[in-house]
Formats: sequence, structure tokens, C-alpha cells
Amino acid sequence: MKTLTVNLGERSYPIYIGSRILESDELLARHLTSSQVMVITNETVAPLYLERVKQRLTGKETAEVILPDGESYKSIESAMIIFDRLLAGKISRDASLIALGGGVIGDLVGFTAACYQRGVPFIQIPTTLLAQVDSSVGGKTAVNHPRGKNMIGAFYQPQCVLADTSTLDTLADRELSAGLAEVIKYGLIRDLEFFEWLEANLERLLARDAEALAYAIERSCLNKAEVVAEDERESGLRAILNLGHTFGHAIETGMGYGTYLHGEAVAIGICQAADLSRRLGWLDADSVERIVSLLARARLPVTPPTDLDADRYLDLMAVDKKNVAGKLRMILLERIGRATLPMAVDPELLRATLNEYGRR
Amino acid sequence: MKTLTVNLGERSYPIYIGSRILESDELLARHLTSSQVMVITNETVAPLYLERVKQRLTGKETAEVILPDGESYKSIESAMIIFDRLLAGKISRDASLIALGGGVIGDLVGFTAACYQRGVPFIQIPTTLLAQVDSSVGGKTAVNHPRGKNMIGAFYQPQCVLADTSTLDTLADRELSAGLAEVIKYGLIRDLEFFEWLEANLERLLARDAEALAYAIERSCLNKAEVVAEDERESGLRAILNLGHTFGHAIETGMGYGTYLHGEAVAIGICQAADLSRRLGWLDADSVERIVSLLARARLPVTPPTDLDADRYLDLMAVDKKNVAGKLRMILLERIGRATLPMAVDPELLRATLNEYGRR
Repeated sequence: MKTLTVNLGERSYPIYIGSRILESDELLARHLTSSQVMVITNETVAPLYLERVKQRLTGKETAEVILPDGESYKSIESAMIIFDRLLAGKISRDASLIALGGGVIGDLVGFTAACYQRGVPFIQIPTTLLAQVDSSVGGKTAVNHPRGKNMIGAFYQPQCVLADTSTLDTLADRELSAGLAEVIKYGLIRDLEFFEWLEANLERLLARDAEALAYAIERSCLNKAEVVAEDERESGLRAILNLGHTFGHAIETGMGYGTYLHGEAVAIGICQAADLSRRLGWLDADSVERIVSLLARARLPVTPPTDLDADRYLDLMAVDKKNVAGKLRMILLERIGRATLPMAVDPELLRATLNEYGRR
Repeated sequence: MKTLTVNLGERSYPIYIGSRILESDELLARHLTSSQVMVITNETVAPLYLERVKQRLTGKETAEVILPDGESYKSIESAMIIFDRLLAGKISRDASLIALGGGVIGDLVGFTAACYQRGVPFIQIPTTLLAQVDSSVGGKTAVNHPRGKNMIGAFYQPQCVLADTSTLDTLADRELSAGLAEVIKYGLIRDLEFFEWLEANLERLLARDAEALAYAIERSCLNKAEVVAEDERESGLRAILNLGHTFGHAIETGMGYGTYLHGEAVAIGICQAADLSRRLGWLDADSVERIVSLLARARLPVTPPTDLDADRYLDLMAVDKKNVAGKLRMILLERIGRATLPMAVDPELLRATLNEYGRR
């Protein structure tokens, strides 16, 4: 087992990464101080891992909520279901919540924990690659609003993250690929060596080689932990973690939550961001090709949906959180391994990317 | 004009108290750094003060939301209306929200500001006595859940508090009295001298003597600011601000939000807490009588509603935020001017208070 630390002063916490660490009685107990615990998961994950987690909770007063699976349940309505169950169970402010599932469960439970009685402790047990490498680390919690992804949320850190890599054995191929989009993102924004390792080892990851997956998860978390430690509340640097997300969120909101997996929408968005970076004269055509090619090898979509035209994209991107005073901002690439957040994007070049990249 | 400071490190902020300070162009401008502003108020306050505030916002891109008046609108549904208007107006993360109204508006807007895009700045302009002396100061924000008061919320500090005492000229008598419940509370929990001043000057406050009101507001805010500076997130001391609130919240939830004003429910709750403190041998009967008498002189209710019996009270109090691991906790009085939070309350004595105090 590897242990990384997210360094945030009094809000610091460990990320445990390893195979079958959910079978350890000691790990979870170390971070559960209260006698009341609520586990929140979904209908896909519950039959696979809920009992295993509950076996670690003997002696605690335990409640559980099992939600339907899918991005459309990352909503204020789901949060209200959890609040209702917490209050009906008279669960007090010293209780702990456990998020058992992918990014939707983690973001939703984190937000619920941030707001319940103005804040209760929570633990992340991510069971998808995407959640293990990205959403469970760093304290960004949120639910979606019909007008925009992650628009209602909080910065709220967990007590610990428990990433059991053996849970990926049961992950659908499509979910594995979606996670790889965020893994590739870390290489692109700040870790050229990792990007090159991914180019050399992608097939091992797709074949679920345990050693390769563990390495990719650890290196991704290390990158994320370093960025988050420098800029917890995204006043600057942290925004680079959003490469591809401005386009990607527009795709997710515009096509309806759940049509594309988050990682799939991000993959398309990374391609569009690379194309725009090329139009700005930063990336050369070969680099764009390398990026698109690696994402395609990871079995991710690399062309935007035909249903969204440029005007609709621009309308959806106008509510992005990075925008300042009406100016559209997004993360772009200076080169592979180095991201940047320009103060404003030339609207004509952006429109050219939206009209031309991946369209025929 | 008086300026107090709530000392919370990088989250410190000023409270401005004075007559007609809403007519100053400079004060609000000092704390509004962004070009986008949304003012949220209610149907009672809007005709009185909305234009006055908007006159201070010339040159800004300004939006407004006017909600119905009343505690029943301190809800997740109201928060969703505000989120929807913010997103429809493409209002970005650097915008400011302004809460113009009483405690319901202040708590609701504070919570909305805490969650919108994971946090935007906000300013409190309290227009009721209760909001000026209590709810606008200290960063406790929340909405109610049908099962409990303030159960969904955040600790989130404003940029400043602007308490214009002249807005109290238009306040209903009943609202003025409700505010006095919280004013009297400060004397009871930590300021005997202030309690004695209130005994001597209550009629001046009821007659809306401007000088007396300004003094009572300033002294209340000073007490609150000191407590909050010592314990922002209520890990200990801050709980004393909740004298009477465990009983009071049960009354509000049990009778339906809006039947009693918050201050009215707190007044009854303070009497019950005093009665229970007497049963514990801390307060003598004369002190209880002084407390009940001052609240009654302030034209506040001092006997509990006949509709709530002891079992219902106990059920409602079981979700109080101060409870730990199933043990009921509440603020009591050692003497006038000194509050305490015992680790647990003797259930028999509590039941005696619920069955006997104010019942015939």
C-alpha cells in the first residue's frame, strides 16, 4: 500500500492506494471517530462492495442510502434525500459519512457532508478509475444545476481517501476509458514524462495490468495533491486541472447529464483545447495529433457531438466558473506538459475551433 | 457611525452601525469589488429600501430577486430560485450578493453565496433588530429542513455588515420585540451589566429611542463578535449564543415555520432554559422571575404553546446540532450573566420543565 498526503495544514489528509485495502479493519477505523456512520452508494456499487465496507463498521450505529447510478443523480434532489435520511435517523453532527462509489457519489456526498448541520466529517472510498485519480482528491464537492455542471458546491476536504485498486476489476470498459481521460490530462498539464510513459504503456492499462494501474493512479494523485496543496480554493494554479473541462461541461450540460460520461466529455474537450492552442500558435500540429491519438487509443471519443453548434457551446460556456466579469476563460496548452490560463480567449479563434475541429 | 470588527484572521470583517448609513455612497462601494451584483430581498423590505440600495450601485451590472416574506421561505426551494436566477443571468464567481432584509434573508443569502460556484462574496444589510444584533454577524448561514431548523448550512463570513438603525423605524412592533429576545440573551449569557441596563431602559427601546437602540445594537454586536472571534465554527464557547434555541427551534419546527417569529420562540425557550437551570439548583427563583419579567415587558410570549407536549418536544430536540452521540445537550444558566453547556441534561428534570413550566 502507498500513502500520499494532501498537505493543507489542519485540513491535511492521507490518500491510501493499494489492492484489497478495503479488507483492512484498521484503515477505516483510524479515521472514524464517531459512533454513527452513514454509507452512501449507488445501485451498481452496492451489490459489489457495500457488505465489504459494512464489515469494517461493526460496533457502529450504521445507516445506508443507495441511490440510482448516473450523473443525473448528482443533483440537489439527491442531496435532499440524504439530508432527509440523516434527520429521520437523528444522526448528529459528530457522525461520519462515507462516499462509496464513483465521482458522482463522491461529489454529492462531499457536498452533503459540507452542508449537513454546517459540516460533518466524511471519507472517500472511490471505486472508479476517474474517482481514484481525480474527483475523490482535493475537496471540490458539488451537485449539478440544470443550467450548469457543479454550479452548487463547496470546498470541503475528506478525512481520508481509500483507493482500493482491486475495485477496478469490476469496472465497465467504458468507465475505465473515462478515467484514463483524466490520467492523460495530468501528463498534458504538468508531467511530460508521465505523458510519455502513458504513450508507452496504454495497452497495459487497458488490459488492467495491476502494476501499471497502481502506478498511473499514484502518479495522478501525486500530481493532483501537489496542485491542490498550492491552491486549495482555486484562486490561480488549480484551474489547470480543468483542461478540457470548459468544453466538456458544455457537452455534458448541452447533451443532458449522462449522455456522455464525464471523462468522455473531457476527452473531447481536451482535443478542442489542443486545437485552439494550435490556432493560438502554441501547440504544433504534431503535438495535437499525439494528444488526439493517445485519447483515441484509450477508446475515448475525440470528436464533438454534431448536435451542439458553436452558438449553443458559447451560450453554455458563458456560465463557466473560471469566467471573470463576462470574459470567457479556459485552460489551454503551451506545450505537452505545460498548461496555461490566458486572461481571455480570442472569440474568433474559439469559434473557429468550435466550427471546424472534428466537423466535416 | 460606529465600526466594530469581527476578528477572524483573513476572514475578518467590519460591522458598521449608524443611522442613515445606507445613504453613504462610499461604504458599500468599499466592499464591492466586482462589476456584477445581485440584491436579494423580500416583498416587505423591497418597497422600503431596495431603491435606496440600488442607488448605491450605479455603474454596476445589477440583478435582484424579491422573495415572499417569512420563515417558511428559508428553504432549499428559495435557494434554488436564487441559483436559477444567478445562472440565467450568467453571473460569475467574482460577483457579489447582497442580503437586504431580516434574518431569513440573511441566512438564506449567506448559504446561497457559500454554495454558488463553491463560494462568492456577500454583504449583509440587516433591516430588522434581530438581524442587526444577531443573525447578520458571525457567518452562520443555513436553510431549514422540514425536520429541523438550520439543518442545511455553512459557516461562511460576509465581506461586511451594514446595520442602518433608521431601518428600524419601519419595523413592526412584533418584529422589534422579537429582536429584543436576542438582545436580552446577550445580557443573560455573558453581560450582567448589560442585562441591568436593559432592565432600566427597556421602555426606551420599545419607544424606539434612537440613542438607546444604537447602544443596544452596538453592545449586542460587541458581545457576539467577541464570542465568534474565539470560536468561529462552534467547537465550544460559541454554543452559548444558543441559549433558549434548543427549546425555541423545537417550537418553530413543531408549530410550523412562521407560526412564531424566531425571537418569540427563543423568548419562550429562554424561560424554559431558566426553569430547567433552577431545577438543577443553579438559578434561584428570583432570577427566573427577573428573566421572565423582562421578556414579558418586552412584549414577548413567555409560556409554551399548549399544542406541543413533552414527548413531541423531546422528539424534535433529538435532532439539535449540539447533541453528541445521542446525548441531549443545551445551553443553561449558572446565573444571570453566565451561561454553560453541560455534557448531558438529566432527562427527568427536562421532562419536568416541559410538563410544568408555564402549564396549568
